[in-house]
Amino acid sequence: MATAIQHQGQLTKPPGALGRLEEIAIRLAAMQGHPRPTLERIQIVLFAGDHGVTAEGISAFPPAVTAEMVRNFARGGAAINVLARQIGAPLEVINLGTLEPLEPIEGVTQLPLGPGTANFTRQPAMDPFQLARALHMGRHSAERARRAGAQLFIGGEMGIGNTTAAAALACALLEEAPTHLVGPGTGLPAARVAHKRRVVERALSHHRAHLNSPVEALRRLGGFEIAGLTGALLACAHIGLPVLVDGFICSVAALTAARLCEGAEQWFLFAHRSAEPGHGRVLAALAAEPLLDLEMRLGEGSGAALAVPLLQAACRLHGEMATFATAGVSAAS
Amino acid sequence: MATAIQHQGQLTKPPGALGRLEEIAIRLAAMQGHPRPTLERIQIVLFAGDHGVTAEGISAFPPAVTAEMVRNFARGGAAINVLARQIGAPLEVINLGTLEPLEPIEGVTQLPLGPGTANFTRQPAMDPFQLARALHMGRHSAERARRAGAQLFIGGEMGIGNTTAAAALACALLEEAPTHLVGPGTGLPAARVAHKRRVVERALSHHRAHLNSPVEALRRLGGFEIAGLTGALLACAHIGLPVLVDGFICSVAALTAARLCEGAEQWFLFAHRSAEPGHGRVLAALAAEPLLDLEMRLGEGSGAALAVPLLQAACRLHGEMATFATAGVSAAS
Repeated sequence: MATAIQHQGQLTKPPGALGRLEEIAIRLAAMQGHPRPTLERIQIVLFAGDHGVTAEGISAFPPAVTAEMVRNFARGGAAINVLARQIGAPLEVINLGTLEPLEPIEGVTQLPLGPGTANFTRQPAMDPFQLARALHMGRHSAERARRAGAQLFIGGEMGIGNTTAAAALACALLEEAPTHLVGPGTGLPAARVAHKRRVVERALSHHRAHLNSPVEALRRLGGFEIAGLTGALLACAHIGLPVLVDGFICSVAALTAARLCEGAEQWFLFAHRSAEPGHGRVLAALAAEPLLDLEMRLGEGSGAALAVPLLQAACRLHGEMATFATAGVSAAS
Repeated sequence: MATAIQHQGQLTKPPGALGRLEEIAIRLAAMQGHPRPTLERIQIVLFAGDHGVTAEGISAFPPAVTAEMVRNFARGGAAINVLARQIGAPLEVINLGTLEPLEPIEGVTQLPLGPGTANFTRQPAMDPFQLARALHMGRHSAERARRAGAQLFIGGEMGIGNTTAAAALACALLEEAPTHLVGPGTGLPAARVAHKRRVVERALSHHRAHLNSPVEALRRLGGFEIAGLTGALLACAHIGLPVLVDGFICSVAALTAARLCEGAEQWFLFAHRSAEPGHGRVLAALAAEPLLDLEMRLGEGSGAALAVPLLQAACRLHGEMATFATAGVSAAS
């Protein structure tokens, strides 16, 4: 990091003129252990899973959409497919359990842990075995990415109902009221957001005796894909693979990882500020300042994939610009 | 635009979930006159020129840096070179007049209008012939870009002292006090910013009888590169070539173009919010909401080049995503 800071100060530009791109290059230099970081190989891993809490009517879309979107990912028609192609990143899709079982699909890794989670207003979302498996699948995906030479890990998610699960989990971890963390998700009108908030209140009340432990909060209020992401992010921090965190759901997984392993967040960069209103509280708890704010609220890892060229630009500027000395440019007076 | 709006609403994502990328795709569709816009060919044109007002000690860097940076552009060592390579965009460098004459340099178009502008605290920055030539060079650059098949025009600038000229011009056009528009530029400490503000106050006072006319304000307070940019942007609006506007200097040129030709701004997209504090006022006057806010303050067109992948993503998402019908995905309930 010290070498990178010194080099950055010699580039032919006024000091600080590249703004946050300078900090990004320096952080990536530190994470890669190299004064001239590069970002050529990016791995995107998208976890899908359904949520029993959809029985409470908390989403604008029916849970069947989770499985339908997995097929859409496999055929290359979703937003994350377009963005992955743009940045030349492979996309791995892992089905951790849709409500209706999926047929074998080329390009989708099928590791279902059940027909979605249980309805967490009445019982824990996952049993201990499901949680352990989901964390494990996430960890394996990070280790595969590292073995394949990835220099950056992006996690994505698809799961109708998962803003409800993420909001409930964030409430537990942050000890915040649902009013600050429950939002419209895929596009609920205000009256249905109020209902969604009451559903989260009921869930928090039901599990309140067990929410002091982050791992127990994740098991009771999370989802298969949120646990998969959490396992992936913990492993990335463990093996030293930088992570570019997407929006609300992924940030809650990042927060969970940071609560499970202090310091894990040092390996996380944050791509964008979601339109989901609760995202701000989660980012603040992680002292995270994302790069983009484009009012996106899609998930899938889309905001992270969109931010990749910014990180690549930061690395290239840091590595390719001339210095004042080599270019014969005068310094400030 | 109507066709593009309808198509955008059928893509496999919750309505609005791609945030500002949806609006960008729709605006580019309207500008290109095609419901599926594309952005494969981008032209960057960088205008360089020196400023007589540097004699007043308003910059952290000596004016020799303008010519030194032109050489750096020609050798590919500046930030804009790195960013242009990243997006595969040709970069044209036009020297409109450095303080010290430049030797012939491969890759630099030499069209010097003088050894920099005159010191505008005492006389007009340009004579009418210089202004006309600078506007004309700008117009030609836009027409060349269009003939070469460009789908997007990015203007860049290099000129030690040009935040002073741009601030003075913006004060005249917006009838604002220098206190709101004069900032640290390449990095002046607070005491020198106060001095820079007084220099602008003196200039505005000297020319005050002539500043009601935008073209006269440009001639008296602008610079060769600012006039070149203004001519380029006017021509882009005239020939229907979308522009991605960079930071403070380019936005003042965009404002000048909009004052010279009402409606020109409909062809302008705004890339980023500069760290230069006066940029906000200029953007507000143009009702512009830039895409990025990364605390950059470099110029050269760097913020615009950095934002290109966002526009390309907007176009690709709009053009390549599956629709609910073709993908068999259920709609919201």
